[in-house]
Amino acid sequence: MATAHAASWAASLTMSQLPPAVVRAAMESLYNYIGCAIGGASHPTTAAARSALAPLFGASTSTLLGQDAKADAAHAALLNGIAAHVHDYDDTHLATIVHPTAPVASALLAQAEALGPGISGERLLVALVAGIEVECKLALGVWPAHYDVGWHITGTVGAIGAAAAVGRLLDLSPVQMEHALGIAASQVTGLRVMFGSDTKAFHVGRAAQNGLLAALLAQKGFTAAPGALEASRGWAAVVDAITPAAPQNIAAQIHTLGHTWEITANAFKPFPCGIVVHPTLDACLRLHDSAAAITAVHVRVHPLVLELTGKTAPADGLQAKFSVFHAAAAALRSGAAGPAQFADAFVVRPDVVALRGKVTATADAGLAADAAEVVLTLADGAERRVFVEHAIGSTAVPMDAAALEAKFLGQVTPVLGAAAAARASAMAWGALESTDVAQWAAGLSE
Amino acid sequence: MATAHAASWAASLTMSQLPPAVVRAAMESLYNYIGCAIGGASHPTTAAARSALAPLFGASTSTLLGQDAKADAAHAALLNGIAAHVHDYDDTHLATIVHPTAPVASALLAQAEALGPGISGERLLVALVAGIEVECKLALGVWPAHYDVGWHITGTVGAIGAAAAVGRLLDLSPVQMEHALGIAASQVTGLRVMFGSDTKAFHVGRAAQNGLLAALLAQKGFTAAPGALEASRGWAAVVDAITPAAPQNIAAQIHTLGHTWEITANAFKPFPCGIVVHPTLDACLRLHDSAAAITAVHVRVHPLVLELTGKTAPADGLQAKFSVFHAAAAALRSGAAGPAQFADAFVVRPDVVALRGKVTATADAGLAADAAEVVLTLADGAERRVFVEHAIGSTAVPMDAAALEAKFLGQVTPVLGAAAAARASAMAWGALESTDVAQWAAGLSE
Repeated sequence: MATAHAASWAASLTMSQLPPAVVRAAMESLYNYIGCAIGGASHPTTAAARSALAPLFGASTSTLLGQDAKADAAHAALLNGIAAHVHDYDDTHLATIVHPTAPVASALLAQAEALGPGISGERLLVALVAGIEVECKLALGVWPAHYDVGWHITGTVGAIGAAAAVGRLLDLSPVQMEHALGIAASQVTGLRVMFGSDTKAFHVGRAAQNGLLAALLAQKGFTAAPGALEASRGWAAVVDAITPAAPQNIAAQIHTLGHTWEITANAFKPFPCGIVVHPTLDACLRLHDSAAAITAVHVRVHPLVLELTGKTAPADGLQAKFSVFHAAAAALRSGAAGPAQFADAFVVRPDVVALRGKVTATADAGLAADAAEVVLTLADGAERRVFVEHAIGSTAVPMDAAALEAKFLGQVTPVLGAAAAARASAMAWGALESTDVAQWAAGLSE
Repeated sequence: MATAHAASWAASLTMSQLPPAVVRAAMESLYNYIGCAIGGASHPTTAAARSALAPLFGASTSTLLGQDAKADAAHAALLNGIAAHVHDYDDTHLATIVHPTAPVASALLAQAEALGPGISGERLLVALVAGIEVECKLALGVWPAHYDVGWHITGTVGAIGAAAAVGRLLDLSPVQMEHALGIAASQVTGLRVMFGSDTKAFHVGRAAQNGLLAALLAQKGFTAAPGALEASRGWAAVVDAITPAAPQNIAAQIHTLGHTWEITANAFKPFPCGIVVHPTLDACLRLHDSAAAITAVHVRVHPLVLELTGKTAPADGLQAKFSVFHAAAAALRSGAAGPAQFADAFVVRPDVVALRGKVTATADAGLAADAAEVVLTLADGAERRVFVEHAIGSTAVPMDAAALEAKFLGQVTPVLGAAAAARASAMAWGALESTDVAQWAAGLSE
């Protein structure tokens, strides 16, 4: 009954059911997403995908954010999803390391534009919440074994969330919605082995497409198996094969839909790299003034940090996002940890490489995931030590609206210029007031 | 090194390396595929998908077989893949129950047409063999645990085979080909729980799209992780999580590429339903003349038959393909087991339902998968018993060219008419002589 319950919940969600904190979290999530998608528009990964797929584009219904171009809804979903994730700068549901908004919003915005005039911002927001809630509940149900075995969880649950969101937008019936969730569930995209390659961001865009496709098929009567998520040999049993209780686990999570809201636990990244590195960055930024005199750097971190970001000699910006060693050196050297510190050229700069060579790391299972300790040894033998209990951007120390806006402008200004970035920021905050999402979405990149 | 070896092998395969038996098997596989794809063109599943996705179609470069229409290459790959599999009438690599040709050929034909004039039939055939060999070797590497846990193996390995085939067609370098295989591997589509719903055939079409997309992206420099198939937490480790040796298993299979040819073990189905039911159908067809006097039917079958086709009360044609009970009753009642016996109306016919109610089944692990025993009890108390050691269509008793042609015409005539079907059959046999695949493919449905 879990799939049916999720379908029925998502298909009937309305604005009046959303607590104010949920509405605020959804607006912040959408705002942060738009900044990330525009910020990633000119990334080489996005550009390569666009160049490969442009010959397949259909009617230009849907905006490629930040690209002064449109595509059919499915390709817009893919390319906006890639762009929104490619800097590893999008949001994080910390309990599962899902990046919830990019797959859901990419599908949703693209299809909302394809539907044409008259879709309200409220309708968009309700669908976004439906998608993100379904997505994160499923992630909680299969976490951590599903991730541990090697699935890129944002891709796998993202498709199902995207289906729920587009399904809500299309006003699918509960029965159609159950089929949509099933069709999406059968497309399990994303392997962690791809981290550090173009394919990591592709997973997110493909998840958006997978979900969009599922909702469009279900709308025309296409069927999936009943109970696809929890059935014997259904989604949970297959994608979390080493956990016998996986179907019950997802069912338990699904039955909390509407009672606890995952979107209120969504966190925004102050730094464009894997969130597990953020406590180390936070500590190193506080130690920046000692950079010149460093002879050794030692970081003590949660074990996942070395598992995910243990690359000692990253060759380019994408790989550097998975190197706590680069992150520490970059933050210590430049006192910043923005897109510039993860650009290809910065990663191979001799002074950065030299400082990176002085960084060592210890995994400490006693540390929380949002904590880290950094100890510098200086030329005169002195030590400086900083312990970060909760990194900036964690749920304990969230980014406020001003910080989100600074992040947005930092991403969007290089793509659109300062004046257009400020306009886009104001428009992005105003999503909920829009009476025509198609016009609103097209205006974001102008 | 397994991914690199597969990539290098597929990227450099040439016609001169193909033994005559491989060429013949490839031609039969392509011929059988074309009949299936045209035969499934007007199926409601194909029609629903086309109706849902037509608004997304790009430039009309690629034929929708049997549909008198074209679409962009990605949508043609999807819809031809769905059509070719929707009757469960396509081919089977018996050692893995992979249906090898539909995902590979659907991507390949669609992209060959998109490339425009001048692609030869030889080039198409070499690419087809490259794709099917990579696909089936991977399947052997993860068989049977991957299938047992619930993956629809045709979807999961089909994408990687399609990427190899399209990659060969596009003349990708070995390095690009390795990326293509990786991008395809990250899209793991197909859950067995979907058997009996529209989504089963969708898996096959989506696999074709997944592989096509992977090859197109890799051509433009898009990267995947090195060694994506065999790496720690790579494809094999993730999709066959319960087998610690999975990476070594696929590596061992990949290193037989070009030494043993899987396509020569490809089998063609005489009946449009799950191949595990075929021995039972074969036996029941031989017993047809007793149908009127039956009081009980008992079938003794390989255990997989009941696991896969244990539906006792199928409600429609799609479900009936997964009911050994329906299959036995249908073959006994009508003395045939073609598309008509799996049509919705036939499945609910009172006399068929009544006979179905008299069928019981026993799983016998001592039986081979292509064997079955059927025992009829007649009204006068007499018993009739048939034991089939190797079902028609198995590798021991393959369909010959005449049988394949009868099957082709049986599928294509209802869609195109008798004259066009005969023309299509002659053209389909002539693929290898074509100097322009685009023209050839477009001509198949005329």
